[in-house]
Amino acid sequence: MAERVGFIGLGAMGTPMAWNVHGGGYELGVFNRTPAKTRPFADEGVTVFSTPAILTAESDVVVIMVTSSEALDTVLYGDAGVLAGLGRGKAVVNMGTVSPEATREAAEAVHAMGGRFIDAPVSGTVKPAEEGNLVVLAGGLAEDVERVRPVLEAMGKAVVPCGDIPQGTHMKLVLNLMLGNLMQSLAEGLNLGRALELDPDQMLEAIDGGPLGAPLFRMKGGNILAGNFAKQFPVDLLAKDLDLVTGAAGKAAVPLPQTAATRETVSAARALGHGDEDMAALIRVLERLTGSEVRS
Amino acid sequence: MAERVGFIGLGAMGTPMAWNVHGGGYELGVFNRTPAKTRPFADEGVTVFSTPAILTAESDVVVIMVTSSEALDTVLYGDAGVLAGLGRGKAVVNMGTVSPEATREAAEAVHAMGGRFIDAPVSGTVKPAEEGNLVVLAGGLAEDVERVRPVLEAMGKAVVPCGDIPQGTHMKLVLNLMLGNLMQSLAEGLNLGRALELDPDQMLEAIDGGPLGAPLFRMKGGNILAGNFAKQFPVDLLAKDLDLVTGAAGKAAVPLPQTAATRETVSAARALGHGDEDMAALIRVLERLTGSEVRS
Amino acid sequence: MAERVGFIGLGAMGTPMAWNVHGGGYELGVFNRTPAKTRPFADEGVTVFSTPAILTAESDVVVIMVTSSEALDTVLYGDAGVLAGLGRGKAVVNMGTVSPEATREAAEAVHAMGGRFIDAPVSGTVKPAEEGNLVVLAGGLAEDVERVRPVLEAMGKAVVPCGDIPQGTHMKLVLNLMLGNLMQSLAEGLNLGRALELDPDQMLEAIDGGPLGAPLFRMKGGNILAGNFAKQFPVDLLAKDLDLVTGAAGKAAVPLPQTAATRETVSAARALGHGDEDMAALIRVLERLTGSEVRS
Amino acid sequence: MAERVGFIGLGAMGTPMAWNVHGGGYELGVFNRTPAKTRPFADEGVTVFSTPAILTAESDVVVIMVTSSEALDTVLYGDAGVLAGLGRGKAVVNMGTVSPEATREAAEAVHAMGGRFIDAPVSGTVKPAEEGNLVVLAGGLAEDVERVRPVLEAMGKAVVPCGDIPQGTHMKLVLNLMLGNLMQSLAEGLNLGRALELDPDQMLEAIDGGPLGAPLFRMKGGNILAGNFAKQFPVDLLAKDLDLVTGAAGKAAVPLPQTAATRETVSAARALGHGDEDMAALIRVLERLTGSEVRS
Repeated sequence: MAERVGFIGLGAMGTPMAWNVHGGGYELGVFNRTPAKTRPFADEGVTVFSTPAILTAESDVVVIMVTSSEALDTVLYGDAGVLAGLGRGKAVVNMGTVSPEATREAAEAVHAMGGRFIDAPVSGTVKPAEEGNLVVLAGGLAEDVERVRPVLEAMGKAVVPCGDIPQGTHMKLVLNLMLGNLMQSLAEGLNLGRALELDPDQMLEAIDGGPLGAPLFRMKGGNILAGNFAKQFPVDLLAKDLDLVTGAAGKAAVPLPQTAATRETVSAARALGHGDEDMAALIRVLERLTGSEVRS
Repeated sequence: MAERVGFIGLGAMGTPMAWNVHGGGYELGVFNRTPAKTRPFADEGVTVFSTPAILTAESDVVVIMVTSSEALDTVLYGDAGVLAGLGRGKAVVNMGTVSPEATREAAEAVHAMGGRFIDAPVSGTVKPAEEGNLVVLAGGLAEDVERVRPVLEAMGKAVVPCGDIPQGTHMKLVLNLMLGNLMQSLAEGLNLGRALELDPDQMLEAIDGGPLGAPLFRMKGGNILAGNFAKQFPVDLLAKDLDLVTGAAGKAAVPLPQTAATRETVSAARALGHGDEDMAALIRVLERLTGSEVRS
Repeated sequence: MAERVGFIGLGAMGTPMAWNVHGGGYELGVFNRTPAKTRPFADEGVTVFSTPAILTAESDVVVIMVTSSEALDTVLYGDAGVLAGLGRGKAVVNMGTVSPEATREAAEAVHAMGGRFIDAPVSGTVKPAEEGNLVVLAGGLAEDVERVRPVLEAMGKAVVPCGDIPQGTHMKLVLNLMLGNLMQSLAEGLNLGRALELDPDQMLEAIDGGPLGAPLFRMKGGNILAGNFAKQFPVDLLAKDLDLVTGAAGKAAVPLPQTAATRETVSAARALGHGDEDMAALIRVLERLTGSEVRS
Repeated sequence: MAERVGFIGLGAMGTPMAWNVHGGGYELGVFNRTPAKTRPFADEGVTVFSTPAILTAESDVVVIMVTSSEALDTVLYGDAGVLAGLGRGKAVVNMGTVSPEATREAAEAVHAMGGRFIDAPVSGTVKPAEEGNLVVLAGGLAEDVERVRPVLEAMGKAVVPCGDIPQGTHMKLVLNLMLGNLMQSLAEGLNLGRALELDPDQMLEAIDGGPLGAPLFRMKGGNILAGNFAKQFPVDLLAKDLDLVTGAAGKAAVPLPQTAATRETVSAARALGHGDEDMAALIRVLERLTGSEVRS
């Protein structure tokens, strides 16, 4: 019999992910801090729980998708939090990105209550979430990862086992290090090319055709040329993740000169008021410094 | 009737490119500074010319593929150089990467002799050159580009018209800015991941599966894990190209913070003796700084 | 009547600072986690207390000079900590560098017990500490700073009032941002000069004679040429302070591109095993990358 | 008998330097491309020459103070240039900053005509030039440097012999690497401090009092707080010098991560229209990125 899945956190990412769990045939329950987001689920017959504790008590697998450490703390450790509803054998899957330290603490707390913990952040933003094309980076005991794999596969096209906790989070940090750097690299390339009077569309074509051709460049490049900075992965979240990256790298004494340069442009983007725009807005910092825009 | 093509410069890139011209059915002649490299061509009945001037006199389209400004100067302006053999209507296609200024000068000199000049550097290294999968970035008058397009298509899978001279070179600089940055980004990601005890193969898998999945990462990532730094695009050439990039950006007053950080790691790679290795050796600088290696 | 001063933390900095308080004519008591360091004080008739709580109970002004947030937490909030000995009117002066957040928390805790809190980190390392030449960066209410000013002046040649809590700490972060950057700047200059075959002593002379002539360069430059990396301000502490700087700058969305580059060299210095050497060892990272040493 | 000194280049630096030579009791002749600048000299009885060639023919020591490679080329190699007036035993002293390569070429050309060449750029800007407080960085044969030392000492407070040609220029590059970095460091410190609501005057006081206290910070810090960006050493010249620095470092494969970061801010300053302002305007880039100004 399929497991009962409780989903906590119905934001821009969580909502489509929860729908994909629902579409995968699971008996779904949801919780969200602001109840309005649960309405469409209720309309489809999904159970809406009033607290994470009750949701946990009534689920076999609890999926958490919240964006900040503070939110995770409340969801887990609050008065009516997940821990309060835990029991032996229940699995808690954390899919948001928090620090490796916070991940370890959460795992210890869940284990102490007899539960299982899977550290499972995702690669991909809103569109892949909607299409069930996320890549899930799963840390935890192999048997725990295997147990929740069918649920994860309802949300993603691939589940990459990364090792023990917090290796899912570590893998996510490596990917987002690269994500930020590639975004900045595209921004520097397009902005230089514009100053040299190259055609932006031809630049994207040339980038796409060869060894540099990452899907990210197609997606973000098109948005930049269209002047579309509606957030998919906002600058503020990139800033948060790069802080986690430089924090982890600092502890491990690993120098990251390029990432450090990217991070400062991210800071500037926030200072200039682009924190809530998509990370493609990094180019706006460079445009501001050179006094013209890259548009088709 | 197909045009007669003269090919100058039979290095690691030039040799397979010349073979692809030959395979495309053109009447081919070649010149190389060190004659040994011409032997295999002679064995297949290709005419070997003793100077660029004679080659030019006997060709309709002259393709030049040499790596340095100095070499280009000799080939063009030397006593028995291309200019000495030029006549009205002949087309000179420069496919190596030199500065925008050197490109402009070469075009003016060729035009002054009644010839046509196409500024056509390529994106892609040895393997794409062998497979005829280069992307050709073509600057010049539209009619000149169209005229030599069939010859270019014998060497590449795509010809991207970039505008007037030196827009082919400018486009190349933008692409190599990104190439260097992506290489450094992969190196930082893999090196941090290793310090965090992630499995290198799983990192490559996770990178490849999502929006970051550029062919470059597959190719270079695999080589790094195999400890294979045999040059395809050597660090010394990347250094040369990033010097051209920062030179052009400096003139245009365009800040490139990430590229600047990458360039310093490239300098360090050269200082550490990796100049003649593939650019994947950037990771060796980071490994040196952290005292361990990223290998499978 | 002179106030009774209790001094907590007899490390490389704290020991000479405490002696200067003693030399200033104050009735001094001391506490140190490892008692051996208190022996020379006991030999001179200084009271050695067994816990911070007892020291606090028997003092009017409590000076704390410990290096980490963890140590400060123990000293303040531990079972027999300063808070346990506090009473109305006693002043607590924190002279180590911790985060602005930790400073605010400490101040609130002290105020809640009726005490006064002065946030007073110092500029200067071991030698100025020995000579009573520190610059004290004092945050807190003006009347609180004035009250403890005589004690501070026993340790330093200048007391700079910086505003409310945690402005002393903020000022310290700005100074150490510059300290790290100047150290790295000297290292880059000397290392480039060596590669260009300049005489290191002449470089220091030229730096010293003009607008660049900061005392730091004289001091650290001489040590570098002598191969003396005995710690005055160790790389690990610089790393800690730059983490606080980038943390504060990240929160405030202030880009610091140069500081970010410096911080990565600091990470590399730690990775290469120089964490416990003086920050002058930043040059060792550059030397490692260029394969030769800057020595007289 | 005192030597006859010919001075070429009466710009912002050259004019006060020439006056100091005059004040030192030398028989002075001058040349300037735009004659208006020579008027005050003529009024004081100084000989004004119509070409560098004639000036050279009538002088024992020729001092050249022009800012660009192009200007130096014209002065030296032009039809009525210095070389055309040279004869055995005359000394040519180049005090502007050009590339090491241009310096070597100039020396060879002068030596070939029987002259002596001294490579003598200066540390210090307009104010030290006026006060005769420049530091002269002298490259060349020891006997040549000694011969012109009295003339140099009329302009500067110190003459630092740096080794053979082009070691004066190399020394200058090291100093200006540090000059740019210190300027950027001050800008980052002040801008962060402002965001943290520190008082700018107190910041300058704290910087000045300790190991960081370089005269540069006093001078530029005061100007920044006063909103005074009148050029002493303009951003465009700093950009030129940092290009020479990164060029020399690139050739020598010496990584300069901090300098690279500084250079990009310099590019941004030029892009934002501050090229002709004093280098203190680097802070304007950071202010632009954070949306507020550092003023008293």
